Amino acid sequence: MKLSQLPFKPTNNPPAQADTVNHKLLVQAGFVRQLMAGVYTYAPLGLRTLNKIRNIIRTEMDAVGGNEILMPSLQPSANWKVTGGWDSIDVLFKVKSRTEKNYALGQSHEEIVTPLAKEIIKSYRDLPLALYQIHWKFRDELRAKSGILRGREFEMKDMYSFHETQADFDRFYQEVKEAYLRAYQKIGLVAKVTEASGGAFTQKISYEFMVLTDAGEDDIFYCEKCDFCINSEIAKQKAGDACPKCGAELKMARASEVGNVFDLGQKYARDFEVEFVGRDGKKAFPIMGCYGWGTTRIMGVLVEKLHDDKGIIWPASVAPFQVQLISLNGVEEIAKSVYDQLIKAGLEVLWDDRDTSPGAKFAAADLIGNPIRLVVSTKTADQVEWKARESGETELISVDETIGRIRSLQVY
Amino acid sequence: MKLSQLPFKPTNNPPAQADTVNHKLLVQAGFVRQLMAGVYTYAPLGLRTLNKIRNIIRTEMDAVGGNEILMPSLQPSANWKVTGGWDSIDVLFKVKSRTEKNYALGQSHEEIVTPLAKEIIKSYRDLPLALYQIHWKFRDELRAKSGILRGREFEMKDMYSFHETQADFDRFYQEVKEAYLRAYQKIGLVAKVTEASGGAFTQKISYEFMVLTDAGEDDIFYCEKCDFCINSEIAKQKAGDACPKCGAELKMARASEVGNVFDLGQKYARDFEVEFVGRDGKKAFPIMGCYGWGTTRIMGVLVEKLHDDKGIIWPASVAPFQVQLISLNGVEEIAKSVYDQLIKAGLEVLWDDRDTSPGAKFAAADLIGNPIRLVVSTKTADQVEWKARESGETELISVDETIGRIRSLQVY
Repeated sequence: MKLSQLPFKPTNNPPAQADTVNHKLLVQAGFVRQLMAGVYTYAPLGLRTLNKIRNIIRTEMDAVGGNEILMPSLQPSANWKVTGGWDSIDVLFKVKSRTEKNYALGQSHEEIVTPLAKEIIKSYRDLPLALYQIHWKFRDELRAKSGILRGREFEMKDMYSFHETQADFDRFYQEVKEAYLRAYQKIGLVAKVTEASGGAFTQKISYEFMVLTDAGEDDIFYCEKCDFCINSEIAKQKAGDACPKCGAELKMARASEVGNVFDLGQKYARDFEVEFVGRDGKKAFPIMGCYGWGTTRIMGVLVEKLHDDKGIIWPASVAPFQVQLISLNGVEEIAKSVYDQLIKAGLEVLWDDRDTSPGAKFAAADLIGNPIRLVVSTKTADQVEWKARESGETELISVDETIGRIRSLQVY
Repeated sequence: MKLSQLPFKPTNNPPAQADTVNHKLLVQAGFVRQLMAGVYTYAPLGLRTLNKIRNIIRTEMDAVGGNEILMPSLQPSANWKVTGGWDSIDVLFKVKSRTEKNYALGQSHEEIVTPLAKEIIKSYRDLPLALYQIHWKFRDELRAKSGILRGREFEMKDMYSFHETQADFDRFYQEVKEAYLRAYQKIGLVAKVTEASGGAFTQKISYEFMVLTDAGEDDIFYCEKCDFCINSEIAKQKAGDACPKCGAELKMARASEVGNVFDLGQKYARDFEVEFVGRDGKKAFPIMGCYGWGTTRIMGVLVEKLHDDKGIIWPASVAPFQVQLISLNGVEEIAKSVYDQLIKAGLEVLWDDRDTSPGAKFAAADLIGNPIRLVVSTKTADQVEWKARESGETELISVDETIGRIRSLQVY
């Protein structure tokens, strides 16, 4: 794509009232626009990155046997009254129709997926069952903040699983945990599996996947020697205490939640009377799990973690383009030829073809943060100047070598 | 994919209260589930078809220079008050937050895209500009009906364009019209370009893209000899009258709208004060166009048009799978080998591997409506039985020939 044709171009001017790095850089680089607090439009660059994040988690959910579906956002109040959520969940948006019907806007989809699953689950042979979607959520947050980290409208991958036994839930949870950790690794994040409270309807412990960042909203205590990690909200420990697993010293850090798992027990199955005939011929309620993964939030966390004073540094797997091609004045034809060769090789190229200064093009490349910058100028002759976004070093290489190197970047 | 693992399986039992063919067949075949009137969940088969419809229109919008973005559903009331829509649009859902803020749920996105475009459009050099999205819409319909044809929550592709002159809008409209007609052709529909009223805010004529079907909500008068076609709501003609263009006899038919174009003039540009500096150095308001294309509705219209008494007959371009493979008893190993060969060849295969009767498998294949049915049985030896969904004829061919033939089916 030619940058001259990109409708939301990178700009030196930071947005007013940006309280976080992700808000500032994502707007400046042309990935998002804020409509109001906690509600954002995704511009072409942002949508490209979001699509890559979606596909990474989609692949992992398919791999653990998840079935992708798409559930409505407009939901009957009756379903929320069955579970008690209508009166107890303060972030639930409520809508009244012209005909005085009451609807909720989906803030999570247990109330919809459980009656759906009821149709499927008749016998233990129908279990386990895992349904997931990648869809928008609406939450009436008192204070939306932190850019796209905490929105009133945001997107997540939410999966719901149903099991014959607690042991089968535990087995599946382990599989999903590994899938999550693979997905975080693919997008360049290291997440800590953190014990947390189970939420409104259960005394059980849940697991949060936490990325250390000062932009986060939680404090966690973690052990550097082993994998112990606990949310400060439920911790009996404090920083400096001995790790209850290995005895090493616990550290405290600010962190942002990028995923979670709830063991919902039989709460929703009982509420919606989802029963199956077990191996013993008797009826039983399935055990249910819920697995969240914030696609838009993760985009924000990536920016918080991976940036410098010049802009964003996207991992190759989720960068909007693999390459930002810069043509300096006087080499339009050579640049066009290089662009065509890269496109023909199947690469994703953003070509800064604008009639502007070299400095402005270099700044735009650093701001947008595609992993590889290529420069074609009167000095590069029949070669191109290669520079990785996170490195200060440049080198001259042939177009063919460029193509080979870019293909070897980690893309999923 | 193995049909035994599909969570929503085809069933002989039609849903209660299905008033239209698309509702009945889409539920029975396992494509959708109704949550409430006008609001549906998309099951795995339905989501696969929806994704193909999305990609067909996406390709065409990209080809005319559209930039894909994603705008929020939760929208500030202020934007709707600027245009007057807050008080005049009866299908607008309104939401009040805990902090007494008023939001609208997007029923169309002129109120969001125009302020977005304002940031981009400074000079005639920034025009034309076309932004589009594929996203869900919410409309407070008094009576939602006709399955997924008329929903309270539905998906559409909505594009908005901004132009320097009326002539440039007309040029772009012609390009979009041709792109729409190509897209309809790709998904197996023939749409008539129909004159209609311009809606609430303009005296101008709009164009609707109409597919003839008894499940439609409009009556149109059309000429069989030329391309004259007009919505009965604005027609001065009646059935049997002479065509005003060619003099031939006009026919009347029931039709369903699968797309539309509105010439919005300068209404929204004036409301949001979007001005650009023209070639003459003077400020002017751009001319704006809006182009709708109902992705979920088109899925419903396809079923209305393309079915028989056994089920749906999907065009190859939007069928959830290219092939439905049926293995009869006693040939599991051969069927597995055929399945593996087809998958290895990159084909989309739904393998009915269930332990059920041949009759049930044949009925399921006809109901779901994938374009090619392949049967492996003790009678087919090292070949497979090929049958096109819309044909009654079967023939025995080799697996290699099967692969070649399926690859030659029209898929976009």
